[in-house]
Amino acid sequence: MANILIQGATVLTMEGPDGVYRDGEIAIAGNSILSVGPRGSVPEGFRPGRSIDGTGMVAMPGFVNCHTHAAMTLLRSYADDMPLMKWLSEKIWPVEERLQPEDIYWGTMLCCLEMIKSGTTTFADMYFSMERVAAAVEESGMRACLSRGMIGVGSGARKAIDESLSFVREWNGGADGRITAMFGPHAPYTCPPEYLKKVVDLAAREGAGIHIHVAETRDEIEQIRAGYGTTPVRYLDAAGVFELPVLAAHCVHLDEGDIEILSAKRVGIAHCPESNMKLASGIAPVTELLQAGAAVGLGTDGAASNNNLDMLEEMRSASLLHKVSTGDPLALPSFEALRMATAGGALALGLKDVGLLKPGMKADLILVDFRRPHLCPQHDLIAHLVYAAQSADVDTVIINGKVVMEKRQVLNLDEEKIMAEAQKRALRLVNRE
Amino acid sequence: MANILIQGATVLTMEGPDGVYRDGEIAIAGNSILSVGPRGSVPEGFRPGRSIDGTGMVAMPGFVNCHTHAAMTLLRSYADDMPLMKWLSEKIWPVEERLQPEDIYWGTMLCCLEMIKSGTTTFADMYFSMERVAAAVEESGMRACLSRGMIGVGSGARKAIDESLSFVREWNGGADGRITAMFGPHAPYTCPPEYLKKVVDLAAREGAGIHIHVAETRDEIEQIRAGYGTTPVRYLDAAGVFELPVLAAHCVHLDEGDIEILSAKRVGIAHCPESNMKLASGIAPVTELLQAGAAVGLGTDGAASNNNLDMLEEMRSASLLHKVSTGDPLALPSFEALRMATAGGALALGLKDVGLLKPGMKADLILVDFRRPHLCPQHDLIAHLVYAAQSADVDTVIINGKVVMEKRQVLNLDEEKIMAEAQKRALRLVNRE
Repeated sequence: MANILIQGATVLTMEGPDGVYRDGEIAIAGNSILSVGPRGSVPEGFRPGRSIDGTGMVAMPGFVNCHTHAAMTLLRSYADDMPLMKWLSEKIWPVEERLQPEDIYWGTMLCCLEMIKSGTTTFADMYFSMERVAAAVEESGMRACLSRGMIGVGSGARKAIDESLSFVREWNGGADGRITAMFGPHAPYTCPPEYLKKVVDLAAREGAGIHIHVAETRDEIEQIRAGYGTTPVRYLDAAGVFELPVLAAHCVHLDEGDIEILSAKRVGIAHCPESNMKLASGIAPVTELLQAGAAVGLGTDGAASNNNLDMLEEMRSASLLHKVSTGDPLALPSFEALRMATAGGALALGLKDVGLLKPGMKADLILVDFRRPHLCPQHDLIAHLVYAAQSADVDTVIINGKVVMEKRQVLNLDEEKIMAEAQKRALRLVNRE
Repeated sequence: MANILIQGATVLTMEGPDGVYRDGEIAIAGNSILSVGPRGSVPEGFRPGRSIDGTGMVAMPGFVNCHTHAAMTLLRSYADDMPLMKWLSEKIWPVEERLQPEDIYWGTMLCCLEMIKSGTTTFADMYFSMERVAAAVEESGMRACLSRGMIGVGSGARKAIDESLSFVREWNGGADGRITAMFGPHAPYTCPPEYLKKVVDLAAREGAGIHIHVAETRDEIEQIRAGYGTTPVRYLDAAGVFELPVLAAHCVHLDEGDIEILSAKRVGIAHCPESNMKLASGIAPVTELLQAGAAVGLGTDGAASNNNLDMLEEMRSASLLHKVSTGDPLALPSFEALRMATAGGALALGLKDVGLLKPGMKADLILVDFRRPHLCPQHDLIAHLVYAAQSADVDTVIINGKVVMEKRQVLNLDEEKIMAEAQKRALRLVNRE
């Protein structure tokens, strides 16, 4: 892997609103960042194998998408504007039953292609046939936290544990360390307490974290209250889930006590504003969570309920949504939204060497081209990123020290072939051919 | 002007969810649409001067942006995350006082450039130095409804009337019929009843419509209640404003009676979800307005409170916002959102020959390139446009029968020069140089 020198970009380190170098310089050695600073700050003796001219661009950490179901790109815009249970039971689940491992591989490849083109360098996924998802991640060059979704009731419960265990053993630390394997108990309402305890024991023994949906809809709140007389958060806490590193997706319906528990137990939260809006699930109390010191990242959820994997769009939606829902135009200001989409997401995923541009961190970064009418004039670059930019402005993507996109060309993926395979498989799935 | 033949695109006429021709054909004669249909439907004897291959693209009406302050592009991201009155009084108004007519010209040029690149073909603007705005519209090739903003109190009230009148007389029907001039009394709280009556009389005499801000904030509601004991809508109705064609921007805070009046009087409504979210103004009752049969279009508002002029983004925000705020995932489905951004907007502006692809309408249309990972696979093109597309997917823009953008190159505007002028002027304005 060639050392890389990036010069001339405005560098946002994300170490704080003032962590900005106009005409900055970034040195990448192997898969890590060696130095970040103003022009001339690269250590003496650094020999770059290649140089990248960042003139007119902003260099910043790649986006961290904290909650996806990657292969659901195949169902993008297949079924919209429907009530959640009808959508799931009549549209999504019947198709998911027909998904073959190779469909999941190609759906994930399409997802990775789209994510790279929109500046995402890390994502957290929950789905099935995860070995094929891992293969797509390995090939695409992305970084990912992968979990096999586990339903703790019915005939598949035992198989889910077996497959999760072998997946974690085979893939944790895989793809040159780019893959982190996690356990994926689906949700409080699909995993009884004894099942959760089994998963917690296994995860603790394997040294792995947990990815789970929490408090996404009012139905879930009512179901857990009816069955256990408590909230989903307290239910998980009682089962010992929060003694491990946990990534909790959605967290829409929380009371004050839930917020305290999530903050005190350092639970990572994947806030998914567009999915929650589209499915009318509700509005997560993000300003309260941040106030309480919780680790909040951003996620798109699957493409079937979003319908893209665009983190620039997601942070804009988050910021605008929380301003209007709190009635406070100061809520979730631009730097906070950008932090949630980068460093905050890394924290939520428990990745200690991702999400900031500073020496020693993994070299996961993007260049955003600001020479665009909609990013002119340049008063405040962070506000531009959150309130005005679009993902097609992302010019260059580097993951783990390797350039995976340059001038919007994804280097190691065959874009035409991936789209053709996805289209073919999507049609087969929905036409029952 | 050469006749144009577009072949091979999927055509969305916007005459209804089923107004779709796969492998369609559009013939443009002069500035109007001659025919729309499946391949082979072009009238015999039609001789195109040029042909456009629409393979892989969706052809649809250009977007109609129903509420802007175009020159405020110069203040994009200059001041964000602030309370409305502090934002206006400390940041926006002081800079606006220093705006010169040439600043307004270049700010509007930047706005037109950005709008063309994002597929907007018509916009409704309210600002000042409108003759310079009209010059930019004329040069850019766009279609626009232009109004000089009028404050009905203080020393400028008389001048506003004089300038509005001469602007309407000089520019109504200007730029080959692309410019419609309107009167622009700013808002109920800045225009006393007698002033409004004067404006209504003038507008009636000149055969012009009215563009006005209505019920944008709670403060306005309280102010009008305190001063006149009624709502802004009833206040305007009592002043006779709604006897003319009216474009009412925002309409956030309405009661049932207001909704009835707006619908009965066929008032055009410019719904501006992102501006209302960003400034925490509130959520307009759009589903109720549509239910009541009101003419609702979409607007971005100025770039200082959005911070872009991106109608694809605006319709997605509208659809997602109304789903979550009503708790109904069926609210504002994709076709309704797309209609608001096109045909609905044209109706709100009172433009009878814009917003649909059908014979006799003005040839204002765009080609959106669907050969993109985030628009793959192709299950539902309308859902893709509303929930997944971004403005960089717009490939070609035709306004009034003339190609103004092709393969993302804007043909008659100097992109570099416009951005350089805007940057230079913006810096001068905020630095008080």
